[in-house]
Amino acid sequence: MCRLVFVDARAYNSTNINIRKSMPSRTNSNDVARLAGVSRSTVSRVFTDGAYASAETSERVMKAADQLGYCPNAIARSLSMNRTSLIGVIVGELDNPFYADILQVIGVKLQQRRLASLLFVANPSAMDTLIPQVLSYRVDGVIISGATLSSKMALRCQSAGIPVVLVNRYTDSDLISSVVGDNVDGAGQVARLFAERGYRRIGFMAGLPEASSSRDREHGFRIKLADFGLSVSAREVGSFTLEGGARAARAMLCRPDRPEAVFCANDMMATATIDIARTEFNLRIPEDLAVAGYDNSSLAGMLAYQLTSVDQNTTLMAEAALENLLQPSLGAKPPAQVVRIPSKLVERASTTLLAAN
Amino acid sequence: MCRLVFVDARAYNSTNINIRKSMPSRTNSNDVARLAGVSRSTVSRVFTDGAYASAETSERVMKAADQLGYCPNAIARSLSMNRTSLIGVIVGELDNPFYADILQVIGVKLQQRRLASLLFVANPSAMDTLIPQVLSYRVDGVIISGATLSSKMALRCQSAGIPVVLVNRYTDSDLISSVVGDNVDGAGQVARLFAERGYRRIGFMAGLPEASSSRDREHGFRIKLADFGLSVSAREVGSFTLEGGARAARAMLCRPDRPEAVFCANDMMATATIDIARTEFNLRIPEDLAVAGYDNSSLAGMLAYQLTSVDQNTTLMAEAALENLLQPSLGAKPPAQVVRIPSKLVERASTTLLAAN
Repeated sequence: MCRLVFVDARAYNSTNINIRKSMPSRTNSNDVARLAGVSRSTVSRVFTDGAYASAETSERVMKAADQLGYCPNAIARSLSMNRTSLIGVIVGELDNPFYADILQVIGVKLQQRRLASLLFVANPSAMDTLIPQVLSYRVDGVIISGATLSSKMALRCQSAGIPVVLVNRYTDSDLISSVVGDNVDGAGQVARLFAERGYRRIGFMAGLPEASSSRDREHGFRIKLADFGLSVSAREVGSFTLEGGARAARAMLCRPDRPEAVFCANDMMATATIDIARTEFNLRIPEDLAVAGYDNSSLAGMLAYQLTSVDQNTTLMAEAALENLLQPSLGAKPPAQVVRIPSKLVERASTTLLAAN
Repeated sequence: MCRLVFVDARAYNSTNINIRKSMPSRTNSNDVARLAGVSRSTVSRVFTDGAYASAETSERVMKAADQLGYCPNAIARSLSMNRTSLIGVIVGELDNPFYADILQVIGVKLQQRRLASLLFVANPSAMDTLIPQVLSYRVDGVIISGATLSSKMALRCQSAGIPVVLVNRYTDSDLISSVVGDNVDGAGQVARLFAERGYRRIGFMAGLPEASSSRDREHGFRIKLADFGLSVSAREVGSFTLEGGARAARAMLCRPDRPEAVFCANDMMATATIDIARTEFNLRIPEDLAVAGYDNSSLAGMLAYQLTSVDQNTTLMAEAALENLLQPSLGAKPPAQVVRIPSKLVERASTTLLAAN
């Protein structure tokens, strides 16, 4: 039996902590080793480094552990080893399927390395109380995923000596490492597509103006358009949300010089734009209006949208983030780096397709 | 400064653990109290029970802590207090926006209670290695959210003395507590709507046949239809996914006695059904085919779908799950209970709307 702890919900709201406990006699790894007929180090390996025990041994050890009610104590081990194997994962926008996907990939990859994700849902207005909470768990590292999260959190963790990596954004600080998609190149691919399809009146919908992802996508889009002698004729800010995208689409589509093609800095704004174009302006997609998004999230593939979008490779992004966080530190402090993952345009029916050859 | 721990990524793949550490002299809460001019217990309150310190005091303490680089050690505290304030949260299907939403709500509510979510992404094929990992962190409780997760995990945690609550499913075991929506009643509301709108050829699309949510929705739908003298004339299994829903929709819509209205056991299958009906069968929604889903997830509200759906109150579900998990335990073991949260039909344009009075 592991510890049996009853937690009184009221205890969390008062200083009068009242925990009743029952402590069955604890079995240890020696007991399990004896019953399974293996060495103590084999038991330890099965529980901390499963990959290096044979399936047969693993099963025998697990069966013995089950029988004895044994489970190792990662918390106690963390104190003796001076690491917790906990990685703080701070997310901001789980209603965006792109971030839900990133979280899923990060979670799976941490588990594969026998690390655990300590999840924090960031409410931008409550970041200050979140910081000490994250730090108090002595996490081995922090991953911050979200275009809109303040960089204060990152700097505070970094100054507490905890490695930090940002995913899908970077800061001006040269202290903080980041993993981002190659937003300049990805947006450039959309510009090239629009130019090649012959669109001339072109709109751009920004996310949050302060987010590096939005700024880089706008920059990459504009410079590649310029290569083709084109420019952005309408620009609105959609704040990366469905609601903001709908408002921005209305503003863009009621102009007398309505764009023929709009590039939105994420898929949520792009699907909102398609919805507003169809329902409020009676426009056909792509005949009357071409729309492209960014992220190639699950929304983009839905048949009602068939959205041309730029794929950010979430698997590679998550891998790069973990690698950066867990990299061997040879010097006192590894230099911060911005890792850029190649992005790839995925063409669908929301932009005019080339006729088949 | 907190501990500065460098973790070598290679260490996780070998038994040769190699951790280099630098241990700056640690400041403690006494130092912070002295600098802030408050008592040590006030410092402790700010860090563990923020709500009970004034904003002014809180700010002074945080500023002093910042200046000294102090952060409390939740891990060490957990050993002395015999609780970790960690709640294991096991999720299975983050690609379903309903579960991403549930996770977000649970995360926020745990943080408000100064508890942290230890997130595990369940891969059904790797559940056995996940179990000892979750247990090793001595979590104070486990929340399992996902229709398709095996109940083995729940029973294993329970037998290790760790309270467990399932969200959105229950098991036959009377040992495991659950929080579910009132699926029988919610599905009954869809049946009533279909009957009142005059639909006669009615289809039902099941999720995973073994999931309690799918079974209860089918049961509630059929018994309420029977009250109106109706029955299900076509039934397919869509496995709760977009792909499964598309396959099931094709099978249902190519029948000579094609349904006039289909109730799908979740929104993902319902949106897939709308997509297939429009693109492959050239059907208008709702004139040729009415479609209703379940969950009232973000998909349902999108203008391209405008899906009539049954709202599961994720906020109430998350609250009930935490309350169940953290309830004061007066006896040796609280009896397991199944908490049902009322569900509410949300009517949109995917079913025929009543004319305005």
